[in-house]
Amino acid sequence: MAGNSVLLAAVSVLSACQQSYFAIHVAKARLKYKVMPPAVSGSPEFERIFRAQQNGVEFYPLFMITLWMAGWYFNQVFATCLGLVYMYARHQYFWGYSEAAKKRILGFRLSLGALALLAILAVLGIANSFLDEYLDIDIAKKLRHF
Amino acid sequence: MAGNSVLLAAVSVLSACQQSYFAIHVAKARLKYKVMPPAVSGSPEFERIFRAQQNGVEFYPLFMITLWMAGWYFNQVFATCLGLVYMYARHQYFWGYSEAAKKRILGFRLSLGALALLAILAVLGIANSFLDEYLDIDIAKKLRHF
Amino acid sequence: MAGNSVLLAAVSVLSACQQSYFAIHVAKARLKYKVMPPAVSGSPEFERIFRAQQNGVEFYPLFMITLWMAGWYFNQVFATCLGLVYMYARHQYFWGYSEAAKKRILGFRLSLGALALLAILAVLGIANSFLDEYLDIDIAKKLRHF
Repeated sequence: MAGNSVLLAAVSVLSACQQSYFAIHVAKARLKYKVMPPAVSGSPEFERIFRAQQNGVEFYPLFMITLWMAGWYFNQVFATCLGLVYMYARHQYFWGYSEAAKKRILGFRLSLGALALLAILAVLGIANSFLDEYLDIDIAKKLRHF
Repeated sequence: MAGNSVLLAAVSVLSACQQSYFAIHVAKARLKYKVMPPAVSGSPEFERIFRAQQNGVEFYPLFMITLWMAGWYFNQVFATCLGLVYMYARHQYFWGYSEAAKKRILGFRLSLGALALLAILAVLGIANSFLDEYLDIDIAKKLRHF
Repeated sequence: MAGNSVLLAAVSVLSACQQSYFAIHVAKARLKYKVMPPAVSGSPEFERIFRAQQNGVEFYPLFMITLWMAGWYFNQVFATCLGLVYMYARHQYFWGYSEAAKKRILGFRLSLGALALLAILAVLGIANSFLDEYLDIDIAKKLRHF
């Protein structure tokens, strides 16, 4: 198990670092735009950076679940690559959004695409695993036969 | 491991899809009530939908942790059923809350109940596993004896 | 697997309970300071408690990922101890922040320290596991040799 997931684990810890990095930028933006806790509004620049980070926080558990499920049930290497694409998209989104609200869109779409692909791989892998375990049908094996 | 968790994996991916579905509705509500990012307030209808989704986001990691722990350490089928109850409760909560703040309560209570039960199953399972591993006492076996 | 993670599972469920406990206090603060849903502002006391809980929610997935990765790939007992330190820091942070915005800092720093250590252990463990699996180099073994 642990050995089979080492790439997933690496992507997970990397993206946890990325999230922390975004959180540090929010803290810096608080000082720069003088938005003192607990306030979260008052300056549009700060609000954009804050919302960009919040959006990443919201999607992080979805990302983790789809990454691990796709990695465990479909294929670790595919899931890892999509995970790296997702991280890149989050990077684009965060820096785009902190410049202007419109510039967030490209990164956001790419991140949704990577997430959707991860979810599809997870569903395929889980469905195959389910059929194999409960109905004794191994589709992956049959496909390899052709 | 992976084979033993296929039902948990299925519920996890399903509820990730449910969360995405709620997030899409927030995006639609943004357009409908003309609340442009990064603003998150301005229209009470939008605020209700936004808070309903945010609440789901907040509880999602707790749900995942209790679901997987209850499934791994207690019983996968029980945990899966409670997970489906939780998803149904979240559905009720989201649509109730988007209609009126009062209508959120029923779904919310049901979701808390499912979550509490998952946590209890997880605690029982972990306690049993802990006693078995560190003190060599297998309560589950003794109970089956009676 | 399940047996090797029982301490991690215990800390995870404990901290899920802690998060729920914070959420209950936010609900109580809503009644006390008369901030009716969906509003999340209006009273500075409520806003502080709300932000304290929100901050915990934001960090919870990062905590879970680094805890499990450090536990799986480095050492379960170390990770568990750091997890308990993190929970204690969160406790300090929450109660400090609900009293005054300044009092949150000590707990926050301690929680970041625990999180950073967990991340470092996770990175070390994953790197070792990666070298072992893909390049057939077992550093942990070599270190034990000296």
